[in-house]
Amino acid sequence: MALKNAFYAQSSGVSAVINASACGVLQTARQYSRQIGKVYAGRNGIIGALTEDLIDTSVESDAAIAALKHTPGAAFGSCRYKLSSLHEQRAQYERLIEVFRAHDIGFFFYNGGGDSQDTAYKVSQMGAGLGYPIVCVGIPKTMDNDLPITDCSPGFGSVAKYVATSLREVALDLAAMSRTSTKVFTLEVIGRHAGWTTAACALAAEHEGDAPHVLLLPEVAFDEERFLVKVEEALERYDHCVIAVSEGVKGPDGEFLAASGSKDSFGHAQLGGVAPLISSLISTKLGCKCHWAVPDYLLRSARHIASETDLQQAHAVGRAAVEFALDGKNAVMTAIRRLSDAPYRWDIIAAPLSEVANQEKLLPPDFISADGFGITAAARRYLAPLIVGEAYPPFKNGLPDYVKLRNVRAPKKLTTEFAV
Amino acid sequence: MALKNAFYAQSSGVSAVINASACGVLQTARQYSRQIGKVYAGRNGIIGALTEDLIDTSVESDAAIAALKHTPGAAFGSCRYKLSSLHEQRAQYERLIEVFRAHDIGFFFYNGGGDSQDTAYKVSQMGAGLGYPIVCVGIPKTMDNDLPITDCSPGFGSVAKYVATSLREVALDLAAMSRTSTKVFTLEVIGRHAGWTTAACALAAEHEGDAPHVLLLPEVAFDEERFLVKVEEALERYDHCVIAVSEGVKGPDGEFLAASGSKDSFGHAQLGGVAPLISSLISTKLGCKCHWAVPDYLLRSARHIASETDLQQAHAVGRAAVEFALDGKNAVMTAIRRLSDAPYRWDIIAAPLSEVANQEKLLPPDFISADGFGITAAARRYLAPLIVGEAYPPFKNGLPDYVKLRNVRAPKKLTTEFAV
Repeated sequence: MALKNAFYAQSSGVSAVINASACGVLQTARQYSRQIGKVYAGRNGIIGALTEDLIDTSVESDAAIAALKHTPGAAFGSCRYKLSSLHEQRAQYERLIEVFRAHDIGFFFYNGGGDSQDTAYKVSQMGAGLGYPIVCVGIPKTMDNDLPITDCSPGFGSVAKYVATSLREVALDLAAMSRTSTKVFTLEVIGRHAGWTTAACALAAEHEGDAPHVLLLPEVAFDEERFLVKVEEALERYDHCVIAVSEGVKGPDGEFLAASGSKDSFGHAQLGGVAPLISSLISTKLGCKCHWAVPDYLLRSARHIASETDLQQAHAVGRAAVEFALDGKNAVMTAIRRLSDAPYRWDIIAAPLSEVANQEKLLPPDFISADGFGITAAARRYLAPLIVGEAYPPFKNGLPDYVKLRNVRAPKKLTTEFAV
Repeated sequence: MALKNAFYAQSSGVSAVINASACGVLQTARQYSRQIGKVYAGRNGIIGALTEDLIDTSVESDAAIAALKHTPGAAFGSCRYKLSSLHEQRAQYERLIEVFRAHDIGFFFYNGGGDSQDTAYKVSQMGAGLGYPIVCVGIPKTMDNDLPITDCSPGFGSVAKYVATSLREVALDLAAMSRTSTKVFTLEVIGRHAGWTTAACALAAEHEGDAPHVLLLPEVAFDEERFLVKVEEALERYDHCVIAVSEGVKGPDGEFLAASGSKDSFGHAQLGGVAPLISSLISTKLGCKCHWAVPDYLLRSARHIASETDLQQAHAVGRAAVEFALDGKNAVMTAIRRLSDAPYRWDIIAAPLSEVANQEKLLPPDFISADGFGITAAARRYLAPLIVGEAYPPFKNGLPDYVKLRNVRAPKKLTTEFAV
């Protein structure tokens, strides 16, 4: 009997380490070459499956696959594209089955955030609903760290390391300049609803009084008056103030402070630009010189300052996905289970996709300090191990030497087209 | 006869490697302990001299001094404070002499950009004008790379490495997402009048078609129509477009596209926020999803991704300053002289402060491509060696382990105060 092939794809916003998960999947599938056939990667996520745009990963060298571990972005292309329900859009699912059948695909690996796990869940339901047997495993990825069940989401640890490192550096800059120049610096970080990345900024502080002095978390409604008092306190004590603000911070009315007006294809408001707003508020009300930064995508693609812990986890959830699939575990996501804080020990378990899809894990109340402008010791215990270890990419001529795969398209077997 | 002491201070915007210059000064002064007394550092630049707030560096351990080499910011505090001319503000100079005489200071080392070299020059003139003999050496520092004579300014190579690395990373992100999401990314970089940092972004590209696709240099007047055509061309060819824009880009009328309205204490307009403007222009006119980033101070304090070449040069200009001073070279700045491009070879020469002060070195015309949106091969030959080599700081618990000096104030010898 011919071996079943596998489909792997990357979905939603990319990260510094999602390719390490791809590396885990591909290396492990090659190890189990007597149980699994080819791995086809979808070009641009599920779109690659719908349009029969499948990349034959078997032509890539072992060295190229290994180099994925140090390359950010999404090597096969990602997408923001959500499948409708089987009930609403039966044609989409029939097309998926048509493509999977044509290429003899028995394993489906989908690597992404909450929306992507929803896609993985729907594909797993399709097997039963339309009579096409397929083993479906989700692989977690989101720099927002908002997936449930898993201890953390691969991609987040590196973002956390980037923001904490950057804040520690910029705090030295500000402390050196505040006597005659800038006194307040505001860093805007990602995290639409969940304040994990904002909370991670607090790791920059080692001692009492170290920056950041104020966090603006999306879980806490913005109170202008209390905020300005907090900034003034920091200015009095330290002559400067460093603030980390979530892109998703909301006013007392529950509206985002800074919505740019446009929406992405999932229907989410496209955010960005709350740091200049906060900065302008302070310079107007307190009359001091302010600077602000919005690193935006730099923050999630900064492979050069990735966390070694994050990298290992990203690889492990990819590897485990193949092992779970070969064990017949279906409709699950590979999830990280924390066994201890210090030393940080963890393993990989199978979380039911039905419990993962479309869930958003916010900062728990006991991670937020009483005044709402900082984090607790419990939060610090949780966050601290995730940024440990450096995993520098190789450099050539002063720049990171990232791999570009050949991404050869597998010959089409269908004559029909499908518009997405 | 008692040895003369030295005064060292850091001035204007700080960088990832200005403390490496401090390290070069202090280590070298310790080596020549039979020719030079104590090194006093001014707290917050020249302000420390005017207010007799002198830091006694002799209490710092050799290990702490060595750790300056991997610590960003300005260990003794910096300032934006420009001395008036001797003619206009004689009292300032008389105060400087009063403080220098009280602490027996015979050497003056001032580490900063163009405005700071102007201060160094004025202090060197003071010696003759007011009859106080002092040997005065400027040490170059500016991430803007706009100092004349020197091949480059320490601080710039690390900024160049940061922007080129970040752009290479973010380009992979964008290429992976553009099918269904963001198509245009705009990175705003520093450089008020000189486009060196914007030009350095181009180093991210290795092959034809690699990002960045468009540079907006401050040396080239912004032409909206031609710019949009250029962006459209990139979108047609690559389905995405990466833009690097200088904070100081100006319209055809010579006005900054985005002036925030406030001015710094040197009278310069405080800039920031041209990237959101460019991004909004593109989404309005071309109707595609755009993202933007403004790393601001992150860019100049990012010691974690410093250039080893830059670091060596920063240390060397500090070391040479002491050697030149002991040789009796007065009213000079330590400058880097390029001996060859590949391999990059350089040494340190003495540039007359009179030729350095208040000069701004812009991108030469032959470094700018014919269409104004890129750089030439000559520019690339110049820039390429400056980012070579990695010089990672030590890490502890996942974060850079930066040194904090004791910064003990030397006992005051004067009873008079001086308001700045």
